Amino acid sequence: MNTHFMKHLECVLCKKTYPIGAYFTCPCCGEKGILDVVYDYETIKKFMTKDTLKQDDDHSMFRYRYLLPVQTDHMKDMLKIGWTPFYRAHRLETYLGLRKLFIKDESVNPSGSLKDRASAIAVLQAIDQGVNAVSCSSTGNAASSLACHAARMGIPAYIFVPKRAPIGKVNQLLLYGAHVTLVDGDYNQTYQLSKEAIEHFGWYNRNAAVNPYLVEGKKTVGYEIFEQKDLRPTDWIAVSVGDGCTIAGIYKAIYDFKKLGLIHKIPKLLGVQSEGCAPFVEAYQTQSPLKKAEEHTIADSIAVGVPRNPIKAIHAVEKTHGAWIAVPDENILEAMRLLGTHEGLCAEPASAAALAGIKEALKQGIIKPNESVVMIHTGHGLKDPVNAQKAVGSPPLCSPELNAFIKQHESLKETPHD
Amino acid sequence: MNTHFMKHLECVLCKKTYPIGAYFTCPCCGEKGILDVVYDYETIKKFMTKDTLKQDDDHSMFRYRYLLPVQTDHMKDMLKIGWTPFYRAHRLETYLGLRKLFIKDESVNPSGSLKDRASAIAVLQAIDQGVNAVSCSSTGNAASSLACHAARMGIPAYIFVPKRAPIGKVNQLLLYGAHVTLVDGDYNQTYQLSKEAIEHFGWYNRNAAVNPYLVEGKKTVGYEIFEQKDLRPTDWIAVSVGDGCTIAGIYKAIYDFKKLGLIHKIPKLLGVQSEGCAPFVEAYQTQSPLKKAEEHTIADSIAVGVPRNPIKAIHAVEKTHGAWIAVPDENILEAMRLLGTHEGLCAEPASAAALAGIKEALKQGIIKPNESVVMIHTGHGLKDPVNAQKAVGSPPLCSPELNAFIKQHESLKETPHD
Repeated sequence: MNTHFMKHLECVLCKKTYPIGAYFTCPCCGEKGILDVVYDYETIKKFMTKDTLKQDDDHSMFRYRYLLPVQTDHMKDMLKIGWTPFYRAHRLETYLGLRKLFIKDESVNPSGSLKDRASAIAVLQAIDQGVNAVSCSSTGNAASSLACHAARMGIPAYIFVPKRAPIGKVNQLLLYGAHVTLVDGDYNQTYQLSKEAIEHFGWYNRNAAVNPYLVEGKKTVGYEIFEQKDLRPTDWIAVSVGDGCTIAGIYKAIYDFKKLGLIHKIPKLLGVQSEGCAPFVEAYQTQSPLKKAEEHTIADSIAVGVPRNPIKAIHAVEKTHGAWIAVPDENILEAMRLLGTHEGLCAEPASAAALAGIKEALKQGIIKPNESVVMIHTGHGLKDPVNAQKAVGSPPLCSPELNAFIKQHESLKETPHD
Repeated sequence: MNTHFMKHLECVLCKKTYPIGAYFTCPCCGEKGILDVVYDYETIKKFMTKDTLKQDDDHSMFRYRYLLPVQTDHMKDMLKIGWTPFYRAHRLETYLGLRKLFIKDESVNPSGSLKDRASAIAVLQAIDQGVNAVSCSSTGNAASSLACHAARMGIPAYIFVPKRAPIGKVNQLLLYGAHVTLVDGDYNQTYQLSKEAIEHFGWYNRNAAVNPYLVEGKKTVGYEIFEQKDLRPTDWIAVSVGDGCTIAGIYKAIYDFKKLGLIHKIPKLLGVQSEGCAPFVEAYQTQSPLKKAEEHTIADSIAVGVPRNPIKAIHAVEKTHGAWIAVPDENILEAMRLLGTHEGLCAEPASAAALAGIKEALKQGIIKPNESVVMIHTGHGLKDPVNAQKAVGSPPLCSPELNAFIKQHESLKETPHD
């Protein structure tokens, strides 16, 4: 490992420290005792400054190599992950009545989602450690990204997926040559089984929540948002939440860049869940501990009834003075249409949920119309054609003129939905 | 228009010249008389050199603004198109027994295909000319890319699509808010009807073959391949061919960069078609004029029985001393698996056809094992989940150890295909 810059691991609960590589979770606190990588910021400051960043011509997540828990040797062989587009969304600003909206487009990563950033760390650590296979349980995106990057690097991938995962996602896994096991159970059961198999076979464990290194990959999306906004953060960053690892990653990005003196303002984090599976929102609203939630939502990528990384996620919102919000599925479908028709972006439900959350937060006065917001577009809509179909609903009406023209031509039929 | 750098239009048949903007096709030669944009290379040479390119921090197709037929004003508002990854494909090289294979990954463009480059020109020209809507007929990718960029820029898009287009592609159109008309006919009938409607309503015509400006967008993929290969072209560039506009664009890139003194070697172009629809290959093998072909292939993006841009495409292969080759659908499905399992790339059938063509050309001795080849990966596999399913076939077998482990766990079922 790149131990020059990592100092140690620290338990999020008891704050005990451990050497790098020692454990995934705290031996004292158990599975809730997720560990956090602590860096030697004083040394990193010498290598990574505003100026070195500006001059760095590595336009991928690996431009942040000093802040990643992997050796640099194999980065060049990976597919290009990160340094994804950061768009101003003028047309949606007008629609929403919001001063500034930016969209970070993670759908153009190699496997079509933000999860590529975490899977990159998994595959590179597996290589660094000489482990012979990688594995995870996932509702889809984590799995397809792991399968994708493992294929590129020639490493077998063993994937455990709940049966409800959309067909596009499962086919993508198989196309990458992954060994796929569809589990006849919910996310939690799938996770438990993968955990046992991983222990049994000694595979690299890419289950994001318990692996302290993966969030280090995910955080790079936050670094990029800051750099692409000239190191002047917006008032808010909105992202949908399942296990809680992505929002934890964004908080880590804030923490790191603040420590390095690269940003001075702390953006508030808006954690968005679907009403059909909103354990974080319920805990936040009732000021009570997390309870297992049902998983009834079209947003399968965030349908996680028992989040595996609750503490980091809750901290992320608390420490930034952010908020949690839930949105119904119909608002998620509307957000998919809004992203498509106003910005030319094709989002899967879990991704569009972030926009639905921004709209709801504006309505509730949580976000003010004169504030600036980043929405993280986490995954491509093509991954989930069934819900894309739901989102578009009945065919759009043509103008009377076009209809009349079409009627004059026998061989034309205006039936987009048969 | 950016008339500082365009000199005139020239007919590919009679070589007559016309002022920029005058016509789409030659008034003397009719629809076969596709026009070609001729630039003032002497002036462009002053603005665009090896050094200026190296220093240009516009990492999109618009880094080639001096060689594009659009004003620069609105380029900054577009989604990010181009400067897509250029990968060395070590694992496929080993598999194929080929010295050097590179893959240009166009699937990470905003709408998931190379067609974004042409649609960008259409949308920007529509804005430059103050036209109120854009339109095209397309088997899918041209349409979804037009709908995507029109949505981003706030312009209505009218799309005519043959009914056989995969559902993922049609839903993508509707999600972008396009006015979609599914045509109960083949590609040719769809094209004819769109042509009439475009004339009737005065929309901007994004039908690639007859519009001389769109190939100017497509050619940027060639420029990038050269730049990303340090201006030392490979022996071959392989790409699948439908209408013929993409291969014509690559030839234009060769022509322009040669004229500007940026490259010195001419790569041979390998035009790949599906056996189920191979009019170019048949004409090439029989040394006879193009004949209308059936459209029976899974590679819907290149299933074009009557190519609309034959002359430029045939010239492209002839002038580079390249070759035409046809591959059966089963080889295309195999190529989809090869790209996935060896490089972590998810390709639609038309895209994978290029790899199948390289494999076949190696077998036939057209490409030599010691040569270097670029494969253009034109479109994302997620656009066509039905054929992705066909490609993956029956579920992969798990190891006996994993099977034994799974059998110990009741709630697990190894049934990826139910």
